[in-house]
Amino acid sequence: MKSGDKNYMHRHDTDALYNALVEILGADCVSLDAAVAEAHAGDWSDAPRMRPRMTLLPRNPEDVARALRVLGEHRQAVVVQGGLTGLAGGATPQAGEVALSLARVNAIESFDRIGGTLTVQAGVPLEQLQTFVEAEGWFFPLDLGARGTCQIGGNAATNAGGNRVIRFGTMRDLILGLEVALPDGTMLSMMNRVTKNTTGIDLKQLFIGSEGTLGVITRIVLKLEPKPSAVNTALCAVASFDDATRLLKYLRARLANLSSFELMWQDFMSAAMDIAHLKAPFGDTYPVYVLIETLGESDDDDRRALEHSLERMLDDGIVQDVIIAQSIEHAKQLWAYRETVGELLSKLKPHAAFDIGIPMDRMNGFVEDARAALNERFSQQAHLFFGHLGDGNLHLLSGPYADAADLLKVEELIYAAVNDVQGCISAEHGIGVIKQPFLHYSRSAPELDLMGKLKALLDPAGILNVGRVTK
Amino acid sequence: MKSGDKNYMHRHDTDALYNALVEILGADCVSLDAAVAEAHAGDWSDAPRMRPRMTLLPRNPEDVARALRVLGEHRQAVVVQGGLTGLAGGATPQAGEVALSLARVNAIESFDRIGGTLTVQAGVPLEQLQTFVEAEGWFFPLDLGARGTCQIGGNAATNAGGNRVIRFGTMRDLILGLEVALPDGTMLSMMNRVTKNTTGIDLKQLFIGSEGTLGVITRIVLKLEPKPSAVNTALCAVASFDDATRLLKYLRARLANLSSFELMWQDFMSAAMDIAHLKAPFGDTYPVYVLIETLGESDDDDRRALEHSLERMLDDGIVQDVIIAQSIEHAKQLWAYRETVGELLSKLKPHAAFDIGIPMDRMNGFVEDARAALNERFSQQAHLFFGHLGDGNLHLLSGPYADAADLLKVEELIYAAVNDVQGCISAEHGIGVIKQPFLHYSRSAPELDLMGKLKALLDPAGILNVGRVTK
Repeated sequence: MKSGDKNYMHRHDTDALYNALVEILGADCVSLDAAVAEAHAGDWSDAPRMRPRMTLLPRNPEDVARALRVLGEHRQAVVVQGGLTGLAGGATPQAGEVALSLARVNAIESFDRIGGTLTVQAGVPLEQLQTFVEAEGWFFPLDLGARGTCQIGGNAATNAGGNRVIRFGTMRDLILGLEVALPDGTMLSMMNRVTKNTTGIDLKQLFIGSEGTLGVITRIVLKLEPKPSAVNTALCAVASFDDATRLLKYLRARLANLSSFELMWQDFMSAAMDIAHLKAPFGDTYPVYVLIETLGESDDDDRRALEHSLERMLDDGIVQDVIIAQSIEHAKQLWAYRETVGELLSKLKPHAAFDIGIPMDRMNGFVEDARAALNERFSQQAHLFFGHLGDGNLHLLSGPYADAADLLKVEELIYAAVNDVQGCISAEHGIGVIKQPFLHYSRSAPELDLMGKLKALLDPAGILNVGRVTK
Repeated sequence: MKSGDKNYMHRHDTDALYNALVEILGADCVSLDAAVAEAHAGDWSDAPRMRPRMTLLPRNPEDVARALRVLGEHRQAVVVQGGLTGLAGGATPQAGEVALSLARVNAIESFDRIGGTLTVQAGVPLEQLQTFVEAEGWFFPLDLGARGTCQIGGNAATNAGGNRVIRFGTMRDLILGLEVALPDGTMLSMMNRVTKNTTGIDLKQLFIGSEGTLGVITRIVLKLEPKPSAVNTALCAVASFDDATRLLKYLRARLANLSSFELMWQDFMSAAMDIAHLKAPFGDTYPVYVLIETLGESDDDDRRALEHSLERMLDDGIVQDVIIAQSIEHAKQLWAYRETVGELLSKLKPHAAFDIGIPMDRMNGFVEDARAALNERFSQQAHLFFGHLGDGNLHLLSGPYADAADLLKVEELIYAAVNDVQGCISAEHGIGVIKQPFLHYSRSAPELDLMGKLKALLDPAGILNVGRVTK
């Protein structure tokens, strides 16, 4: 044995670690198999794929905690993995990391059918959970494109948003309780089941949205809504962004069941029609379009309220034209413009895709300035703006770019502009490894300092999701 | 000078501290006056009053941070004070503490009238803020009895709730951004202005509901709602608690603008009628009564939806009888039963008053068991149950007790029962010093341990609100 033989040391370490983990988890839960490693080598982002040196597939929350204790004793870096649908590279292994998958920690544990709360383990896929509660007259309102694959634990760790935030909030608002395995192997139970709890520091908030850097979420108590049965949809044409904000304010007061308010600027609408061969919705074109959805219980009353509201907005000149869906099929046609995003993302590759948050009173100026700057510097590319206006969440799709250096320039340009208007560089997808270099555009130096101190407090050995979010 | 002369040393310390604070804040902001001290000697709770050794009245957020730095250098314990309306003794000075009042840090700084966000300093009284935004067509939905005196910073520090949580959430849900002066004098700015922000650990959550133990909230960005103009009110009689939960589930789906769902058991109703000389609302008595309120924009559509909903519940046998208010005056009459609470609190003194949270599927059993146990052991006292059912928040008023030892027995009995059903010992009023000895009934040992570590991390000198929440 040569002490300088790194490969040997590496293998020796792996063996000791492997044996310790097998002892805790069982041989079928610790994999060195290349195919398994390949399946855990990356998320849906463009972060470079990397096979983990070992893949752990524990069967229950307690084994997750035990595995962390062993990993800590071996000073072994570990990346936590849910459904691997993230877009920020947070779950993509970095060199030398072990992958810890929650896929088998997936029991639905209990269901309060009276109050509407559900207790689940972290690995339950979102769609499975939605279907499960809907069969019993309840509804879990979080919804996003990756629903079939993403896991509820990942939704919590990233504070997922989606299409219905305007009414039901983000994942943070849908969580009553959490259980978290800390990096030192301690199980931290915070399994609150009540809406109002004022018994000191709300510790679970530390783990929601911190992307698995402080602990591994293992169990969750979710707050459900009664299942709605009536969906109403409308598409509005408006003359300006300002009119769209007036429409939003009126509808927020008038229609408490407003569940979506999606904004599309004319440039996006035009690209959407091109790529999906869709007809123009109205005879004329308009600067801005708004897609509206309500979720309720009474088709008649809900429809009447929507019609009355939009008639009023037409009379007041705030809305120029409107289409109210007359059937489910018709509603799908109205959503079709918005749902071309997937195709546009493919067509415009390589692109820069943003999920930024902008204060509403700065939004219009931001869009106008950013469009002008991009059109001037990158006139050969498309720059399409759309977003969940009710949440101040703006998407921008810009591309295609042949040169990677241009992509970086676009990111720098947009993130610096976000900083200027006190916005945030991510409203949905998170920081992960991909946006980490830009985090300072959204968080102050004392914030970054405190985040680092919290990381050191909870993960003193520095083994868990290192390099994600903070350095 | 004798080194053993404690009074002298004490006076010397005060002088040095006093001088340092006067240098920072100005002489008019540092008071040794007995009348000022008396005005800052306690909150609305029964915690023993104690004059602070000095009262600080800084004029702006930056001076709060500077004062904390000086206090830390002198290892001087400090209690943070807002409107002093708390019911848990959190703002009542303990021996030797300096009081730091936010009363003058009370500017309304900026108002985004497009998106509906308001930036304020911590000392603005709640009612002033409500009135300010309502004059411009916006609405701040947090509301509680102390509105005229309580301050928005205290509302944030205690995560205040109130009557409209079922629709708008607690204070935590209404805060977008915070600025906090840390115990070491660092100013931590987290002045986010967007609804969705996924840029790492949501640090502001540490300070919401932690009752000023980790830092002093100095500025807040609040999320507003459009001002509603239509209020509809109804009182329902139901045959059982279970029927009340069925009614709640139906109305949550049907009436998205449902803003209150207040439950009163018959024993409470009877006591309310007695004390305020109110007529019985219905010809018969019923086991449970529910007070319902909706907040919207259209009197016609909203009224029709409420009527349709309650007709359906009558047809289904879930509601036994119903009164829908026909005027504002009539609505006040319906609320009058619920609003006898203040008088009942006075009449039943000395009492034990609880603001507990109970999971919905355990609520009925909890109330029945607790009522039986209290009636058996304390048959001479009244035990009145009511609450914000939509939030799982149960109030119990039990008294009068001549013997203080009995009060303690009632508290032990109820808190142990809360623990058994996985409830929380405070859903509204917080822990402060009064509920501190009972905190272990609601929080696990690892939670208490982590709270202590966070306290040590942020307040290593141990000067800020010491002894509140955690020991």
